[in-house]
This record gives sequence, C-alpha cells and structure tokens, in this order.
Amino acid sequence: MLIVKKFGGTSVGSPERIMNVAIRCVEDYKKGNDVVVVLSAMGKTTDDLISLAHKVNPKPPKRELDMLLVTGEQVSVSMMAMAMASLGVRAVSLNAFQVAMHTTSQYSNARLKRIDCDRIRHELEDRKIVIVTGFQGINKYDDYTTLGRGGSDTTAVALAAALHADACEIYTDVDGVYTSDPRIVRNARKLQEITYDEMLEMASLGAGVLHNRSVEMAKKYGVTLVVRSSLNYSEGTVVKEDAKVERMLISGVAVDKNADRVSVIGLKDQPGVAFRLFDILAKANVNVDMILQSIGRDDTKDISFTCDDGQMDEAIKAIESNRERLKYHKIDMNSDVAKVSIVGAGMMTNPGVAAKMFEALYNEGININMISTSEIRVTVLISEREAERAANAIHDAFGLAD
Amino acid sequence: MLIVKKFGGTSVGSPERIMNVAIRCVEDYKKGNDVVVVLSAMGKTTDDLISLAHKVNPKPPKRELDMLLVTGEQVSVSMMAMAMASLGVRAVSLNAFQVAMHTTSQYSNARLKRIDCDRIRHELEDRKIVIVTGFQGINKYDDYTTLGRGGSDTTAVALAAALHADACEIYTDVDGVYTSDPRIVRNARKLQEITYDEMLEMASLGAGVLHNRSVEMAKKYGVTLVVRSSLNYSEGTVVKEDAKVERMLISGVAVDKNADRVSVIGLKDQPGVAFRLFDILAKANVNVDMILQSIGRDDTKDISFTCDDGQMDEAIKAIESNRERLKYHKIDMNSDVAKVSIVGAGMMTNPGVAAKMFEALYNEGININMISTSEIRVTVLISEREAERAANAIHDAFGLAD
Repeated sequence: MLIVKKFGGTSVGSPERIMNVAIRCVEDYKKGNDVVVVLSAMGKTTDDLISLAHKVNPKPPKRELDMLLVTGEQVSVSMMAMAMASLGVRAVSLNAFQVAMHTTSQYSNARLKRIDCDRIRHELEDRKIVIVTGFQGINKYDDYTTLGRGGSDTTAVALAAALHADACEIYTDVDGVYTSDPRIVRNARKLQEITYDEMLEMASLGAGVLHNRSVEMAKKYGVTLVVRSSLNYSEGTVVKEDAKVERMLISGVAVDKNADRVSVIGLKDQPGVAFRLFDILAKANVNVDMILQSIGRDDTKDISFTCDDGQMDEAIKAIESNRERLKYHKIDMNSDVAKVSIVGAGMMTNPGVAAKMFEALYNEGININMISTSEIRVTVLISEREAERAANAIHDAFGLAD
Repeated sequence: MLIVKKFGGTSVGSPERIMNVAIRCVEDYKKGNDVVVVLSAMGKTTDDLISLAHKVNPKPPKRELDMLLVTGEQVSVSMMAMAMASLGVRAVSLNAFQVAMHTTSQYSNARLKRIDCDRIRHELEDRKIVIVTGFQGINKYDDYTTLGRGGSDTTAVALAAALHADACEIYTDVDGVYTSDPRIVRNARKLQEITYDEMLEMASLGAGVLHNRSVEMAKKYGVTLVVRSSLNYSEGTVVKEDAKVERMLISGVAVDKNADRVSVIGLKDQPGVAFRLFDILAKANVNVDMILQSIGRDDTKDISFTCDDGQMDEAIKAIESNRERLKYHKIDMNSDVAKVSIVGAGMMTNPGVAAKMFEALYNEGININMISTSEIRVTVLISEREAERAANAIHDAFGLAD
C-alpha cells in the first residue's frame, strides 16, 4: 500500500508531538507500506511569522510573505525526518522546490497545477519515508507560493492523486466528521461515512475539518479520504463517492462565524451592474460567498454578499475606489454575522427540509438576514451571537444526535 | 557601482535592526548603485534551530539539519525585502535554489562551486535590491547544504566575484579589523588596511571578524573587502592585495580559544604513520589545525594536533576505531588550550620576531605547549586560562597600541 498521511499544525506542535507522529508513521512503514507524510507548520508558527512580518511592514508584499511563511513547513518536515532517523528509519524531507510542486503564479492563494513525482518515487523505491511540506508550491518564476487556507490538505490530496496512493489519511485534532461542531452543538455525533458532495458543503460552510478545495480535488481524482485523529486510533470518517450514509434528511449542521456581510445599497437597476460589482471584487481577490440581490426603491437595487472575516476591508476599499463606475448610494456592512447551514444528500428528494430549519429558528426567536440554498444545502445568515443556539436547535429538530 | 553588502546575525537580530539595515542599503541604492545584500539568520536563530533539532534527535542526519538551518536565512531575507518595501523600494529575496548557488555535496560543510547570476542580474536590471540568503547552497541532488562557519561571508565574496562587483562590504558588530580582539586586549587598535595574507592568518587564528574561507576566496578573485560596523558609519578596514599597512613588525595578535589538543602517544617510528593518522582524520571530516611531531622513546614517536572545539570527540573516535591500523600506545587530550598568534607581513624580513614573542610569554611565566609558524605568523598553544594575559603582554611588547 502507498499511504499519504497529512498532519496539521497542532499534531506537530512540539518536538514531543513530532516524535508521536513519527512513531505512528513508522508503524505503517514497518508493515511494509510506502509512506508519504505531508505536514503543516508547527503549531502557531505561521501566525507568529505573519506577526513578525508586520513588525517591518504592515502590508508586506505577498511574494515576500510567502517566501517567509514557507519556512514554517520546512522546519516541520526536517524535524520529522530527524525524529524518524532517531527511530532508526530512513526518511527524507522535501520542500516545494525539491518535489517540485508547481502552482499558479498568484501569491498567498495559489492553485496546484502539476506535481513532479520522480523524486518522491525514487526515494520511496529506496525504502525511505518521504516527508513533504504542505501548503506551499513554486510558480513559473521559481518563486514560492502558498495555497491559502487548508493548503496542506490540498497538498496531501494532490499527492495522493498524483502518486495513485491507496489511501489518503487526514489527521486532525478531532476524530472524524461530526453532524455538527462538537464545541458548539452538545449532541453532535461522529459520522462513519460521508459523500464528497456532503463533505464539500460541510467544508465550505466552515465545518473546519477539511477545506473545500481539498475535498473538491479528492472528488475530481476519486481519492478516498479518511479523516481521523492524531491523538487516538479511533477509526475516523471515510469521505468517498458512494458513502453509505445513514439515510437521514440531513447529515450535518455547519456553523461558520468567519463571515462578514457587505451590502451595496442603491445600485442602478440595469443590466451589467452585478457583473461590474463582482468583477471588481474578483480582481481585488475577495472570495465572495453568499450573494443576495433585492429590489430597492426608485429604479435601484441592493446587492448583499458575504466574505471571509478580514476580507471585508479589502472588499469595501475595492468598491469605494470604483464608486464612479458602480454608481451606488451607500455601503452597509456587518461583521457580527454567522452562517448556519444544513447539509445532506437526503434533502434533494425530501421537500420541507428548509421549512423545518426555518421553523426551528422561529421557535428560538432568531431572525434570518439572508438565505442561500443548493441542492443539498440550506444556509441562513444570522447574528453571530445567536449562532450556537441556532445550531443546537436545528440539530435537535432533525434528530441528528440519535 | 555594484555593491555587495553582507550583514551578520547580530545586525539583523530584530525587526528594528532589520529596518536599520534596510535604511542603510536603501541609501546606497538611492545614490544610483546596484545593491546586492547577503544576510545571515536573525540573531541566535541557527543555535535555536540546532537546539530544536536535538530535541528529536541528538545526532540529527546532516542532510536534514541543513534542510532545517537554511530556513533561518530565508526568514532574514524575506523580512528584509518587506522592510525595504515599507520604505517604498522594490526588493526581492532569493534563496539558494532561486539564485542558484551550487555547492559540493557535503552537508554542513559544503564548498561553493558555481553561482548562476542570471536571476540576480535580471532583478538588478529591473532596479530591484536583491537580497540573498548567505551560508547556504544546493548540491547536485537538489538538496540544501550549508557552508559551515563563516559561510555568509563566503557567500558575499563569491557573489561579489561572480557579479564583478565594485565593492564587497562585510558589516559586523565591530567597526573594522583590530590589532587584537578589543574584548581581550585593552589597547587594541583599528587597522586602516591589511593584506589578504595577513587577514587570512588573523582570520584562521580566530580574529573572528572574517572567516579564512571568505578571505581566501577574496584573494583568489581579487575582491577588495571592506570590514565595517553596521551600527555606525566609521570607515572600517580595507582588505586587499597591496594594502599600505603601516610597516610594523606585526599587524596583530590573534587569540583562538576554540581549540582542543589531541596527542597520539607511542606511534611506531616508521614511514607512513603520519599519513595514516591524518588520512583517517580527514575521512572523519576533522579539520586539523596545528600539527607537531616529536620523537618518543624506544623507536616510537608522538604526534599532536589541534582541532576545533567539538571535533575532538570525533577525532578520538576515529583514531580509536583505527587502533589496529595505527598501533599507538595511548591518546592524550586537552580541551583547556588556546592558540595565541602574531601575524604580520613585516616579520618575513625581520629576524627575532618569534623570539620577542616568546620573551613576552616568558616574562609572564606562561608555558608554551606547541609552536607553529608560517612566513607571516607565529602561533603558540598555551593554557586557555592564560590566553588573555598572554595576548595583552604580546600586544604591549610589540607596541601595537601606539
């Protein structure tokens, strides 16, 4: 078996934890498997490096910030190789240059394009454990790039696909995918299996366990993922196409507090307005999530959208600097909002699912700001302060704890 | 003018110091010069990383240790580029891969073989300040290597040579080359100029300011060096072939406490013994410095040598594991030793210089363990505890303070 194992920052947060991960990987190796390990930076390293950067430049050039940040994973992988060596196992660490891990040019949010597998295959044939830096790549200028949030998961899935690995295990500090975030919903329950699409909705809605880009890639290349804990040997949750999900209406409730809402009020009610707005936001690299357009007064309309915390300022700046082109009345914003979503392949064939969710919120006296739906998802935007109460109420209403 | 400027770890030891260095480099850039900056890792980063490595492996594989250590300079250079950007100047940081900086294969002590200048030239033509990681390279396996002690100086000189730079400035925490270490010899005086050969002897004897490999390379390629302080604008010391050294008997007194002495007692007095011994040490990568052979008793001889602190154990291990081949009686060792040397082109034509040095030691009642000489140097090995007293006495005896 060729196994790709990915460990996040918490799992390699200290020399002791690195040793624990090393021992765990060596166990699989000694069973005769080929083992490729993908690591994030140790603990809070990435945040610490960003703070350090801000001490010399509050707006560091992204090219240089990536150059700085990629050192974090390089420390992890070399430490891991040393830990494995101390266990008497031959291991080799490789960074994005050495692999090589080709990405698009865009700094801080690059996409993987192509992975050369020659070096990795050669090292595996030499019976070494190969340890690869997650989160990072190189672009056509031979400059480092980083993959943005959840980047190490994406690296692991891409490597599993490129190497035709038999398994891709994502180790985290929770032991699987839950019906909701156990820190928020007291009765949350671990799922044994989940489909890519469900996981995708859960992930993109802030379920936290896996990032949607990695799930998208896993779906595209048919890589079966196992989400499991680095702290215990419990079985985790399998993410795959034909998951035998217990046929409930929904499989989970997701809460994402990492959202801001921006409304552009009083836009001209004429064709091309939405295009211009979202073109401007795209060029400013703002990841827009929910979009809602409503009819305003006197031949105007309002467009609201949500984006990640921390992107709101950029979004507003981009809109304001295009005031002439957009011709709007004013901008309204709210960072005290959260997205609460229900996800489940079951809802496609079951009418009334959304109504049941809204009823649960109504019973709690929670006001809904925006609504967005897909085939297997219903999302509401509500006040951040009410998010936990909402999630618990919805979780109970659908009987997910049973 | 194309100027290569190298700053050591102390000079970039904090975000504030990085800003100061950035300001200084930008001054030269704004005068219209092309500026290439070579940096060491920030402050004690390298030591901290070595400590971190030892927490997972007391004897980390050198390949992985280099992979870890090179992150230190990468942090420095990206921070510097950000600092310069905050000053409104375009700068780009490059690591050993990006340059590319080709070295021999040997980890932890590689030698520079060839530097590709295309990327650097291209960035300079684009009117950017180019910031390059010192100390590191890549070998033919595409693995990181480090250049060993004084590696960043070597990087700077090699870059200056490869780019045909007009000047190579080595910034340090002292403001030039002194007649002796001012921390040890109270009357030490700064030299305006010094020849490569003198600097070479001073450097290899632990003067601390420049490493001998960088001076050797500067001499080989005729790169004029300026050693100056990063903390003030004083003129520093120029190191070049035809230095107008004030014609004194000697130009400096060097003290090196970083030395251990090993003696192999009772070797057979027959041809090939010295070859075998030093061949074994070379294969164990022990850098042998002074060598002394004396006649022992009963057809035997004793060979003593000095090596760096920290290499003594490796040296003894190598000798002991070749006991059969070497056929010696016993090994004697002493880590409580220091080398004190006098250096000066003047001594070639002046007999009695060595005698004057020995007289100064005799007057202080200091015993000499070993003596070694070159055309422009006399070195004695004495007790480490007496090193400072010895250096002051010699400095005074030759009137270096005047």
